[in-house]
This record gives sequence, C-alpha cells and structure tokens, in this order.
Amino acid sequence: MHEIKAFFAEHDHFARHAGIELLEVEPGMARARMQIKPYHFNGANTVHGGAIFTLADFVFAVASNSYGPMAMGINTSVSFVKAAISGTLYAEAEEQSRNTKLATYTVNVTDDSGDLIALFQGMVYLKKAPIISKDAPQG
Amino acid sequence: MHEIKAFFAEHDHFARHAGIELLEVEPGMARARMQIKPYHFNGANTVHGGAIFTLADFVFAVASNSYGPMAMGINTSVSFVKAAISGTLYAEAEEQSRNTKLATYTVNVTDDSGDLIALFQGMVYLKKAPIISKDAPQG
Amino acid sequence: MHEIKAFFAEHDHFARHAGIELLEVEPGMARARMQIKPYHFNGANTVHGGAIFTLADFVFAVASNSYGPMAMGINTSVSFVKAAISGTLYAEAEEQSRNTKLATYTVNVTDDSGDLIALFQGMVYLKKAPIISKDAPQG
Amino acid sequence: MHEIKAFFAEHDHFARHAGIELLEVEPGMARARMQIKPYHFNGANTVHGGAIFTLADFVFAVASNSYGPMAMGINTSVSFVKAAISGTLYAEAEEQSRNTKLATYTVNVTDDSGDLIALFQGMVYLKKAPIISKDAPQG
Repeated sequence: MHEIKAFFAEHDHFARHAGIELLEVEPGMARARMQIKPYHFNGANTVHGGAIFTLADFVFAVASNSYGPMAMGINTSVSFVKAAISGTLYAEAEEQSRNTKLATYTVNVTDDSGDLIALFQGMVYLKKAPIISKDAPQG
Repeated sequence: MHEIKAFFAEHDHFARHAGIELLEVEPGMARARMQIKPYHFNGANTVHGGAIFTLADFVFAVASNSYGPMAMGINTSVSFVKAAISGTLYAEAEEQSRNTKLATYTVNVTDDSGDLIALFQGMVYLKKAPIISKDAPQG
Repeated sequence: MHEIKAFFAEHDHFARHAGIELLEVEPGMARARMQIKPYHFNGANTVHGGAIFTLADFVFAVASNSYGPMAMGINTSVSFVKAAISGTLYAEAEEQSRNTKLATYTVNVTDDSGDLIALFQGMVYLKKAPIISKDAPQG
Repeated sequence: MHEIKAFFAEHDHFARHAGIELLEVEPGMARARMQIKPYHFNGANTVHGGAIFTLADFVFAVASNSYGPMAMGINTSVSFVKAAISGTLYAEAEEQSRNTKLATYTVNVTDDSGDLIALFQGMVYLKKAPIISKDAPQG
C-alpha cells in the first residue's frame, strides 16, 4: 500500500493541481481530503462540481488500483446533495464488488461537520498490465 | 447570452484553474474547450477523469444557467469511452428537457479527431433567484 | 408505516405484476423480495435488468414516500455486478440525504447467498401533495 | 438482423411479460413500443419507473447484441423527465461508442406526442460467446 500511496501522490498531476491530499490506502479502500481554496469555486460561489468530482474520482482510482492491476474508470454517477462553501472536504472510497474484469466502488464526500456533500458510484475495467510499470522510470 | 458568457468566463474559478475556455453560449446550449496540459494527467498518463468531468460539468452549468434563473447540478452520470492523451478536448451541452423546477442536459466530450471521449448526462434543480445578482458587485 | 405498506402492496400494480413482495417499511427505509420466475428472464437466460431495476425502484419509491409527501423518482443509476439465475432476490433501500425538495437513496440488491447483484442510487423530487390522498377511495 | 429480432421476440421473457413489442433492429440500433396497460402503473397513478426502464433496457440489449457477440449490461443511468399516463411509449437505442470489450448506448423514451419521458444511458461488457448459441435449441 505504501508503494501505491507514493505513486499516486507523485503521479496524479490533476489531483495535485486541485489541492487534493491522499490520507490513507488499504486494499479496495482510499481516503483523501481537499481544503477548499478560492480556485475551487464556481459562478454560484459554491465548490465546483468538477472539484468535488475530482476528489471523489481520485479515491475511486486509488482504491481500484490498490491491488496492482491497472483499473480504468468507465462509468461514474454522482448525486450532489449539499452545497460546499468552506472548510475541508473528505472522500472515502469503498469496494462493493470485484471480479477479474470489473469492479465497483462507492464514494461518500463529506464536509467538516460530517454532512454528506456528494454520493458517488463508479465502475472500473481491469487491465492485465500493472498500474506501476517496472520498466519505466517512476520519478 | 453575452452577459452569461462574460459572467462564467469571469466567475467560474475552477473552470479557469483547469484551463477551460468558453467558446459559445446559446439558450440551453454551451460549448467549451480544454487544451491538454501536463497538469491534466492522472497516474496512468491519460487525462484525469476529474479534468474531463470538469469540462463537461462546466458547459452543463453554462447551458442550464443560460436563461437567467440559477440552476444547481443535482445528478450527473458519465461514461468514459476513450482515453485522452494529447491535443484539445471539446465539450458541447444540449438541453433535453426543461420544466419550472428541473432540466436535463447531455454533453459530448470529443477530441481533435472528433472521437467521443466521454458521454455525460446531467440534471439541474432550478431556483427562483437569478444566477447573476443585480445587487452584488460583479467583478 | 402500516398505512404506507398497505398502500403500496395494494396500489403498485407493476411491482405486483413483477411478483415483488414488500417485506418491511420504516421511515426512509424499505425492504422487498422477488422470487425468480420463468417470466423474469432475458434472452441470455439471466434475470432481466428490467426486473432487477423494478425491484430496486420499488423499495426506493416506498422508502422515499414513507414520510407522507409524494416523492417522484427523477434520477437513477444502477451497476449490475453479478448475473442472477435462480432463487430469490432481495432489495433494501437506505436514505442518504433529505431536504424539503430532494432526497437521495441507495439500494443494494442481493441474492440468497448474500452476494451483491446490483447497486442502485436514486434521487426523488418531493411534492407538497401527500402520496395517499384523503379524498379518493383507496381500494 | 432478422435472426436477432426473432430471437429477442421469442426469448426475452420479461420484455414480453411487460407487454413490449420489438419494432426494428439495425446494427447498433433498436426500436420498441409498449402500450400502457393497467398493470404498468405505480402507486402515484403514473407508469412505473420499472416499466419505463424495462422498455429502455430492452432496446439497449437488442442494439448492443445486434452484431452477434453477447453483450451484458453493466451500468445504466436514467433521468425521468415527464410522467407517462396513457397511450403508447416508444424507445429507440442508438450506439455512441464500441470497442472490443465495451460499448455505450443512449435511449430516448417518448410518448405519443413525441414528448421525452426518460433519457437512458447504458454500457455493456462484450463477451466472446455469441448471444445466439448454435448448439442449443432456439425455441
């Protein structure tokens, strides 16, 4: 898990660009946080759906890639249930099913008060190649 | 439409942070592009689902707010059908239904070759308040 | 809850047509089962996605209408994770969020072995009118 | 296409149970209708989401299986945009993407007036085995 955590912290450029910090990785599980910054807002002065999605999608990617084989997100559904305005957002991905080709995850995005901000459901397609290539330079 | 276009270009901070440029707005329709940059990538060296979502979500927001009343995204579903690696991505939102409280939009995200990258479907809840407040300063 | 349970058992014609039996209703929660019959199958000899959806959608409807005000399903997403072939399917709806206008539910569909068959996420729009009209005859 | 059409008309038991009639099949496309009957209704006196889904899911299945290899529905999202009360519902599936393993379809469900009732988006996983087995008896 340490290797996967280091890999994503290093190589997920857009998650870093969005200010997301990976907190924890277990097989089939991942947790991250995003401290709300001025660049996260939309025209309605709430956190942009794209920023919330990026946080959820990131823990979905880490959790689904946590076993080694490369997992590609193919479908995601999100219900946005409460506007986020300030503080820090947290996302936690949980595995719901996994076979040799497909796996399903749910992600809850919550705020500092523990209130649900968004509910995410996603499916990945599993490739045979590992997410961390042994041949390529990693830094 | 000019006012809405200027408003979103100015006030959608996360879309700007993601390098998205609004190209066109019509009632119930919007079109934007995102030139792929190093910060858009994920750990698998393809454009991050969060970046693709942000592009789609942005035209969804502009199209659904194009009539004036504030539209809040409540549900989105995305199928990611092809990995994006380089060049520019384009998104176009099209209105599918609209009543006084709810409206539905589809968004196609395509690459330079016109190939489909992602298929997005989203619903908004319509508030009575306008998206552009007449009382508040706009800049 | 007794009144809601009796109402749905009596008035949900398509659930009855699909052989679905309501087992339990609590505020924001409902549970039902569907014994697999020859008419539930699709061309691939597995239980039809429409039958699985109907079971999930039914507990979603009962749970979201359990407080009284009429709830209309506006968005649903389903991941089908395992084919169902025989025995009985169970569905349980759980409330994830609820405000005055919108509420969100998740539903797990499982088989006799407790294996996950489908994962469902749905949102309702809440009307002011009650689901059980006091003026109309109920039987 | 004639063989696929005959196969689904014969072997899709739940579609038949729901009163659905297959109208047309082309590679990657299918069209069907469902005349609204008393057994299609829910407790709110509108056509049940499960019945509308079954109609949409059926044309999704026929269109995605129209080339021969067996296609299994893995993800579906539906926006319900208008209540259906009487007359006939029509569904038409259109292919949006297809590679060797995954394919994506959209389905519009409309009523007699041509009004949109539901918007459906679905993904299938493609198996190597054909949907119509040459070894097994077909009727």
